[in-house]
Amino acid sequence: MTTSSKDTGFEFQPYYGICTFGRAPHTRDLAGAEVAIVGVPYDGATSYRSGARFGPRAIREQSMLLWGYNNALGVSPFKTLQVIDYGDVDVVPVDVLATHTAINDEVSQIVQAGVKVIALGGDHSIALPLLRAHARQYGPLAVVHFDAHPDTWDTEFGERKYSHGTPFRRAIEEKLIDTSAYLQIGIRGPTSGKQDYADALALGARMITLDEAMGLGLAGILKEIKDRVQDKPLYITLDIDSIDPAFAPGTGTPEVGGFSSYQMLQLLRGLKGLNFVGGDLVEVSPSFDHSHITSILASNLVFEYLSLLALNKLKAE
Amino acid sequence: MTTSSKDTGFEFQPYYGICTFGRAPHTRDLAGAEVAIVGVPYDGATSYRSGARFGPRAIREQSMLLWGYNNALGVSPFKTLQVIDYGDVDVVPVDVLATHTAINDEVSQIVQAGVKVIALGGDHSIALPLLRAHARQYGPLAVVHFDAHPDTWDTEFGERKYSHGTPFRRAIEEKLIDTSAYLQIGIRGPTSGKQDYADALALGARMITLDEAMGLGLAGILKEIKDRVQDKPLYITLDIDSIDPAFAPGTGTPEVGGFSSYQMLQLLRGLKGLNFVGGDLVEVSPSFDHSHITSILASNLVFEYLSLLALNKLKAE
Amino acid sequence: MTTSSKDTGFEFQPYYGICTFGRAPHTRDLAGAEVAIVGVPYDGATSYRSGARFGPRAIREQSMLLWGYNNALGVSPFKTLQVIDYGDVDVVPVDVLATHTAINDEVSQIVQAGVKVIALGGDHSIALPLLRAHARQYGPLAVVHFDAHPDTWDTEFGERKYSHGTPFRRAIEEKLIDTSAYLQIGIRGPTSGKQDYADALALGARMITLDEAMGLGLAGILKEIKDRVQDKPLYITLDIDSIDPAFAPGTGTPEVGGFSSYQMLQLLRGLKGLNFVGGDLVEVSPSFDHSHITSILASNLVFEYLSLLALNKLKAE
Amino acid sequence: MTTSSKDTGFEFQPYYGICTFGRAPHTRDLAGAEVAIVGVPYDGATSYRSGARFGPRAIREQSMLLWGYNNALGVSPFKTLQVIDYGDVDVVPVDVLATHTAINDEVSQIVQAGVKVIALGGDHSIALPLLRAHARQYGPLAVVHFDAHPDTWDTEFGERKYSHGTPFRRAIEEKLIDTSAYLQIGIRGPTSGKQDYADALALGARMITLDEAMGLGLAGILKEIKDRVQDKPLYITLDIDSIDPAFAPGTGTPEVGGFSSYQMLQLLRGLKGLNFVGGDLVEVSPSFDHSHITSILASNLVFEYLSLLALNKLKAE
Amino acid sequence: MTTSSKDTGFEFQPYYGICTFGRAPHTRDLAGAEVAIVGVPYDGATSYRSGARFGPRAIREQSMLLWGYNNALGVSPFKTLQVIDYGDVDVVPVDVLATHTAINDEVSQIVQAGVKVIALGGDHSIALPLLRAHARQYGPLAVVHFDAHPDTWDTEFGERKYSHGTPFRRAIEEKLIDTSAYLQIGIRGPTSGKQDYADALALGARMITLDEAMGLGLAGILKEIKDRVQDKPLYITLDIDSIDPAFAPGTGTPEVGGFSSYQMLQLLRGLKGLNFVGGDLVEVSPSFDHSHITSILASNLVFEYLSLLALNKLKAE
Amino acid sequence: MTTSSKDTGFEFQPYYGICTFGRAPHTRDLAGAEVAIVGVPYDGATSYRSGARFGPRAIREQSMLLWGYNNALGVSPFKTLQVIDYGDVDVVPVDVLATHTAINDEVSQIVQAGVKVIALGGDHSIALPLLRAHARQYGPLAVVHFDAHPDTWDTEFGERKYSHGTPFRRAIEEKLIDTSAYLQIGIRGPTSGKQDYADALALGARMITLDEAMGLGLAGILKEIKDRVQDKPLYITLDIDSIDPAFAPGTGTPEVGGFSSYQMLQLLRGLKGLNFVGGDLVEVSPSFDHSHITSILASNLVFEYLSLLALNKLKAE
Repeated sequence: MTTSSKDTGFEFQPYYGICTFGRAPHTRDLAGAEVAIVGVPYDGATSYRSGARFGPRAIREQSMLLWGYNNALGVSPFKTLQVIDYGDVDVVPVDVLATHTAINDEVSQIVQAGVKVIALGGDHSIALPLLRAHARQYGPLAVVHFDAHPDTWDTEFGERKYSHGTPFRRAIEEKLIDTSAYLQIGIRGPTSGKQDYADALALGARMITLDEAMGLGLAGILKEIKDRVQDKPLYITLDIDSIDPAFAPGTGTPEVGGFSSYQMLQLLRGLKGLNFVGGDLVEVSPSFDHSHITSILASNLVFEYLSLLALNKLKAE
Repeated sequence: MTTSSKDTGFEFQPYYGICTFGRAPHTRDLAGAEVAIVGVPYDGATSYRSGARFGPRAIREQSMLLWGYNNALGVSPFKTLQVIDYGDVDVVPVDVLATHTAINDEVSQIVQAGVKVIALGGDHSIALPLLRAHARQYGPLAVVHFDAHPDTWDTEFGERKYSHGTPFRRAIEEKLIDTSAYLQIGIRGPTSGKQDYADALALGARMITLDEAMGLGLAGILKEIKDRVQDKPLYITLDIDSIDPAFAPGTGTPEVGGFSSYQMLQLLRGLKGLNFVGGDLVEVSPSFDHSHITSILASNLVFEYLSLLALNKLKAE
Repeated sequence: MTTSSKDTGFEFQPYYGICTFGRAPHTRDLAGAEVAIVGVPYDGATSYRSGARFGPRAIREQSMLLWGYNNALGVSPFKTLQVIDYGDVDVVPVDVLATHTAINDEVSQIVQAGVKVIALGGDHSIALPLLRAHARQYGPLAVVHFDAHPDTWDTEFGERKYSHGTPFRRAIEEKLIDTSAYLQIGIRGPTSGKQDYADALALGARMITLDEAMGLGLAGILKEIKDRVQDKPLYITLDIDSIDPAFAPGTGTPEVGGFSSYQMLQLLRGLKGLNFVGGDLVEVSPSFDHSHITSILASNLVFEYLSLLALNKLKAE
Repeated sequence: MTTSSKDTGFEFQPYYGICTFGRAPHTRDLAGAEVAIVGVPYDGATSYRSGARFGPRAIREQSMLLWGYNNALGVSPFKTLQVIDYGDVDVVPVDVLATHTAINDEVSQIVQAGVKVIALGGDHSIALPLLRAHARQYGPLAVVHFDAHPDTWDTEFGERKYSHGTPFRRAIEEKLIDTSAYLQIGIRGPTSGKQDYADALALGARMITLDEAMGLGLAGILKEIKDRVQDKPLYITLDIDSIDPAFAPGTGTPEVGGFSSYQMLQLLRGLKGLNFVGGDLVEVSPSFDHSHITSILASNLVFEYLSLLALNKLKAE
Repeated sequence: MTTSSKDTGFEFQPYYGICTFGRAPHTRDLAGAEVAIVGVPYDGATSYRSGARFGPRAIREQSMLLWGYNNALGVSPFKTLQVIDYGDVDVVPVDVLATHTAINDEVSQIVQAGVKVIALGGDHSIALPLLRAHARQYGPLAVVHFDAHPDTWDTEFGERKYSHGTPFRRAIEEKLIDTSAYLQIGIRGPTSGKQDYADALALGARMITLDEAMGLGLAGILKEIKDRVQDKPLYITLDIDSIDPAFAPGTGTPEVGGFSSYQMLQLLRGLKGLNFVGGDLVEVSPSFDHSHITSILASNLVFEYLSLLALNKLKAE
Repeated sequence: MTTSSKDTGFEFQPYYGICTFGRAPHTRDLAGAEVAIVGVPYDGATSYRSGARFGPRAIREQSMLLWGYNNALGVSPFKTLQVIDYGDVDVVPVDVLATHTAINDEVSQIVQAGVKVIALGGDHSIALPLLRAHARQYGPLAVVHFDAHPDTWDTEFGERKYSHGTPFRRAIEEKLIDTSAYLQIGIRGPTSGKQDYADALALGARMITLDEAMGLGLAGILKEIKDRVQDKPLYITLDIDSIDPAFAPGTGTPEVGGFSSYQMLQLLRGLKGLNFVGGDLVEVSPSFDHSHITSILASNLVFEYLSLLALNKLKAE
């Protein structure tokens, strides 16, 4: 037997057709679904370059290029899992709280139906309602948080509690995160002061700065993660700015000196076997991308998420 | 006597120096100032492409290319007037009401000091607090409103009263506008229904659609304006999307089939002699611009604003 | 009663949701459908810049910005008509004949079900199978052909009969076109020789070059069209390069000195009342576009197509 | 007889082959040549955005799209004339005077061999040595000068006499120009003062500002030109910024509110029959272009130059 | 003795002159030639983003920046070898078979004249006729194949045998490749199924996935190559997508997580001493490039090809 | 105590306000100043792509994103040091010598006032007058020179002594550099001949090519530097093309295969404790950048310069 393009789990060439994530059916019918891709086109809480509202659309478009089989992990997630593209949450640009409510309501309903959610941002402020929806279902969550920035400010834009610089402090305050299993990975760059890192540490985060990460190596980072996450329900939140702007220019607050895409792919694959219950990929901002390399990367990272879920299903069977 | 580049009111070449509008001094000291350029880097109320928060920065940068003398109107606004670049209002991306308050507070203080304000947006939602600040000083305003869209919805994003689709309805409700002297010019494109135009008309606007404008010609449009505005205090609000995307691609909700830059320059120059008390230029979104042609155009339109103010001063002397 | 964004025929903001044309349902079920939008992502017959295979995707994406009501024509096409987004024809990049067969088969089936087709190209070679599918249903067609180039070469790329420079000669040879009602409008620029225009005329085309068009004016052009088309079944084929590259840079063989978008919008609206049975919009090439202005324009032109069909339906009722 | 792409004076498709202007042979052998295309990749005298050194390369590349026959003028310039692509002058970025000498030496040699020169800039400072080379051969020249700026400053960059803002004053001082037949067309935008225009007028220029041009219309402008140029030897110098940035964004000092490409094509064609002896097209700056629309336009304008020369040859025969 | 820019084997600055590869003479006269650069501007067999037809043009343009001496390998290829730029093969966009014939005919003639060929693509489908032309001269070839994808599908686009996903299966079937010396290096990313890799292995390829490559290190990869290639006639085929999109965004089917340019330069240099008889560099797609970094990289990789050939000549002397 | 965005040394969000470097006050008053950022917008001596004149403006704009505290070095340079943004030197595009004089005069005055200078280029020719100004104050300088090219040609553009390819030869001839402490780091790519490297070595440079650097590792490179620089007054000159074009595309003569941004950040941080007296960062060319990643990187590298100076001050206290 030999292979041709018509054997692909992906029936058509990538230039063809309506863009849902990986050509998954676009439906709000949760019956039978195992994973839902959910777009959250909100960028109202951004501190530098806005535009991440178009992240979900761009990631969907470039996901046409995913051919279906993950050679590194040995799994076909779209065949193993019933994946749906749920579409977008109806966010409110002028109202961060209403947006949070809409995300929480919509995603809670999906999670409570036993469907895993992978959310496509949008700016990082959306992680808070996503964590709420997941913690309601799973209890306090282990969180692997890839980012250039800790996002644990107390307030931003003056005294505002809800922004893309504060979600993880809020989540910890709300006891959504099991801080014994909370890792921030890839942190780097200037901050407003020495206190930024100190605050994150005081909140209980295991911060692996980019500099420490380069010393630990991929295996070392993965050991740090596994030692903490163990078999706890794991939420992965991935800010695309954890990756270097050379590999992911399409983002709002780029920070030079980050991970390569190869490193990030290896990190995600290394999470194989953990009890991964949901996640997000945020801060893809297409108007700052070029030739779609950021959204192609993002769609591949989401494909790794799906592959992890598929492996877990196969293992459980 | 012959002229050289050193004779310019603009002492340096356009690639040189710190970017304030037209190299005006950057200061918050209003003493002696006659006109203040005020940036409003807010894009939180945008319905399509965000990014207008960088409008003020881009317009300032390209204003380096303004050489100082307006040949069409015969005036050197930077020599005739004491112009300052006041810098930006400290807006709050996640809070449209707090942003409105900040704009109103800051601009009211300038206006009440007898300094005229030209505001650089930012999305069109900022027009409401700008109108408040001016109406407090001048009473209900004649308003010449260049735009592709009426911006007179009652609500947007569900039931939100404050967005970039509603400011002129709010302003009329608040009696900031003298509707007998309110003109919407350049309106075109699809709307949510027949009612959109009907609503604007019911509010009292004289709507000159782009189609009507092409029939009236520049002189006809100007006559419509002058017949209504007369000697009332005039506020000009110019959404860059009134101009065709070929000439002004860098905007959030482009609408094809609009004015050329030549036509808009002529329209502004035609407002010579009216009692122009303040204005704004909004919706320049640099990440959608190319080669800065939109921000170059915007800086020239602001230069026409300043020229109108300078002529009025000379006439008054 | 006043209007807000929630009243729109378009329920959601343009940054929201899966991109079908104008949010029409994506289905291949023709029951009840009146108009089908059909993408044809083929660019294999292009003589200069390839890339038009992404035209349908880009036009769908920017159609999110269409708000639903056509103020110029006074009609809401998505409310008046049952519009579906049929998705794409499964073209074969390496095989122009197989592609033509696929187009003809797929579109014939739609047309024969009594559903009108608006096809989104793709390069202009696709017009031939589209004309075949329509002529089979309607007989020889009146054709209004907007283009910078006659596309009536006998062969291209050596002796190839099927390319994007030959479809209208083939169509005439196959008697798909009623040449007494065939107009080429907007023709300009260098050609391979004097014979190019002569050939088109010899085939029976009424060629209105861009230069003649500027002299005739919009009303004059429309009169030429109506005098010929009368009540014959009309197919409209619009190569986006009929419009000037300032307004439509995103195309494969740009030709300077063309129509403005305003002029093209007026021309299409002027076809109101003709017996319009089907059409295409071709040669949008997104990798040469900037800020999507070409695909925004294209989506508006398709909106005019739909509006013409809607008016015809209302008139017939 | 019918036409196909193989009949073209242009043997190959535009994506094919080494880029010389219009596929003219690249040679420095002047024997038999009638027109030489000469690149001048110098941008050292630019006051705003540098980059015009790549103008010749970009114009050559896009000239692949010229199909050979000028339908508006009824002539095939590459068949009528022996055109060569001479390649570039070896300019010296750090030394404007050495660059002028190199241009003058190289071009004088060509002109004196009886070969007409069309020079591709480069910034407008190169017009001075080009005028020297032509005036040596033809005596004082009639000059049609399309530009947004008069370029008749006395000095620039402090006291520098040679820059892209001064060439026409120098040329007049050196008696290279017959000022009774010198027209500046398209002038607009802010200048350093009222004196800029006054100086140009004092030097003898007939300045047709863009505003006056719009009033005169194309026929009126052409009459002004012909009344002055008569049968004098005519040099045409065309700064691409005479055209609006919507049509020609790829330039160094864009000035909004200019000619459309259609208007400029008509103006050049209107010079048919004048004693055109040489010309240049300057200030194309490809790094500010998009989708090559500026260099496509420039290559078409050069094609009109060649067509004028071809018609003159045919008339003389 | 000291060096200045005039000592360069490259007589002129990179902004100067007509663009042939490395300023090699453009000729079809093979007498005396040792290496011919041959462009193959065909992109008709592309599965995602078309545009590689402009690869040869862009690589030639950026090759102006190659200064002549290879410091890493200690050789001046343009001085050591008689290199010509043969120009392009006259491909047929609508006909992949005719294109293959044209490539085979043209290249066979060059190869049989004893001239080595470096082909610039175009999409990877062109490798098949290139291998045919070389195998006819040299017998079955050792092949080092850098790529993100195996390109060993049986069919693509339905049942098509000839596309850019199938050339190496065809070549093996036609016994053009000595499979004991065939290496695929850099393979990664999703495929249509597990069978894709299995098929390549079953055909006899030594596949070094990107993951394995990272483990082997550069020295390890080179050992794998040398152990297999030995002194067999070696053809190198390099798909630019073997390199990460951060370093080579300008390509049609980008695959994240690839080699850096440094790694690829080192790999090519490591092939020093092998019996390198011909090669290609394919899939450079300039409309997806930015600031030409992909074509600059490609021109440097071709420079390494030439340097390998030059070293072999020097060794043989 | 917890941190919020209002605690930042940077009072405002990065989209806010007039762009000086890191919001340092723009002043020419040197009283109290410890470090002056000085822009040098000169690109007249560039051999390939011009445009670096806009480097200072772009770096200032992106420096808004620097939050103030350097976590890697543990210092807040804007709090520790009195930093001013001096603005730009008034350069003369057409006159490299006058430009050098202007730089020398302006910078000497600053240096002699005891204020350290960090210059933002502009092309690398500006290093010569910068070295003059520093050597006058400090005597012959240790120089760490990061670059892809040695820049030690004797002449360029024919016989010109002053260009961006010659400054370090000139500086050595003028005894501005202590050649026992002169390192060139990152050198790579083709040169005009074998002599280029030989010349640099003959002048006394310790050249660490990129290849050697990869072998030495970061610690090895730093040891080489420290062994030579010791406690001599150190000038750092950083050509952004020392970094790979994937990370720094926005430059004039990109050379593939360079440092990553992470490596360069580490190298600069490794210079901690050396007697750093002044430096420059050159060759940032924004029109070739995308999404500002090059100018963001450059602003971070300047932030490292400032951090080194701040640490030295703290150590001295």
